[in-house]
Amino acid sequence: MEDFVLEKAIQDVYPDDFAWCFGCGRLNKDGHQLRTGWQGDKTVTFFTPESKYMGIPGFIYGGLIASIIDCHGSGSAALALHRKNGNEIGDGSVPPRFVTASLNVEFLKPTPQQVTLKAVGTVEEIHPKRWKVDTEVYAHNTLCARGIVVLVAMPSTFQKK
Amino acid sequence: MEDFVLEKAIQDVYPDDFAWCFGCGRLNKDGHQLRTGWQGDKTVTFFTPESKYMGIPGFIYGGLIASIIDCHGSGSAALALHRKNGNEIGDGSVPPRFVTASLNVEFLKPTPQQVTLKAVGTVEEIHPKRWKVDTEVYAHNTLCARGIVVLVAMPSTFQKK
Repeated sequence: MEDFVLEKAIQDVYPDDFAWCFGCGRLNKDGHQLRTGWQGDKTVTFFTPESKYMGIPGFIYGGLIASIIDCHGSGSAALALHRKNGNEIGDGSVPPRFVTASLNVEFLKPTPQQVTLKAVGTVEEIHPKRWKVDTEVYAHNTLCARGIVVLVAMPSTFQKK
Repeated sequence: MEDFVLEKAIQDVYPDDFAWCFGCGRLNKDGHQLRTGWQGDKTVTFFTPESKYMGIPGFIYGGLIASIIDCHGSGSAALALHRKNGNEIGDGSVPPRFVTASLNVEFLKPTPQQVTLKAVGTVEEIHPKRWKVDTEVYAHNTLCARGIVVLVAMPSTFQKK
């Protein structure tokens, strides 16, 4: 039986000012509140989409798959850089935040509704400020989509004055 | 002054069974109800995101940009194949529907909130059942994101039994 619970997620400890993302901000009550944590040396995000997020009835719409892969990528890069910096979730340190430079999604199979989706990420540093996350999205044990996200450490110009 | 009104959109005439997409289904009352039409030989989609769709306060979250590019691509391919088949919106013919094979988004600049976004697409047939849409997303006159979507004519297996 698959365990769909993540005890610790990087989004739990984002600074409040950066916790409003519709995809993964814990303070955005209308959003998906995606949570991303470690599972061994992989990163994982679980999400059960509401029925309104359909493409064709019975299947999830592509934009949501893209959103999961994007925010999962951002969280995964933050997890990895945080660990590289010698920190872990819950040690009181403030994690880094990333923004997406590019997002590539291959839709392999129709993604069914009413299933908890699991995104599994492999994180790679391609430059100290530029990271790549390869993600696979599963419904049960079926690989439905694959994504590659390139992310950059957030520049201060993104911060609202 | 830019004209943000589309008189005719391909999504207006999708068959009811295929008009439920969260991104572009006219029957999905919770969704974005994106509408895509011709503007000369380009395809266009206008959208003003609600404030909840933020990434960082002040800016749109990446997943929404990806969703716009995805559904705009699907609508653009349908427009182009419909026209190739000798039909136009409103002539009583049923337009084709496409599904996304791959989606590639480059995020070029932070996309501001409280602005009507304009997606502009260039459609190319790469095979009778496989089309490519290059899309640029503008906020005012600033190019914020660029996308390439490859779409395939919808197979009957996608239809819910």
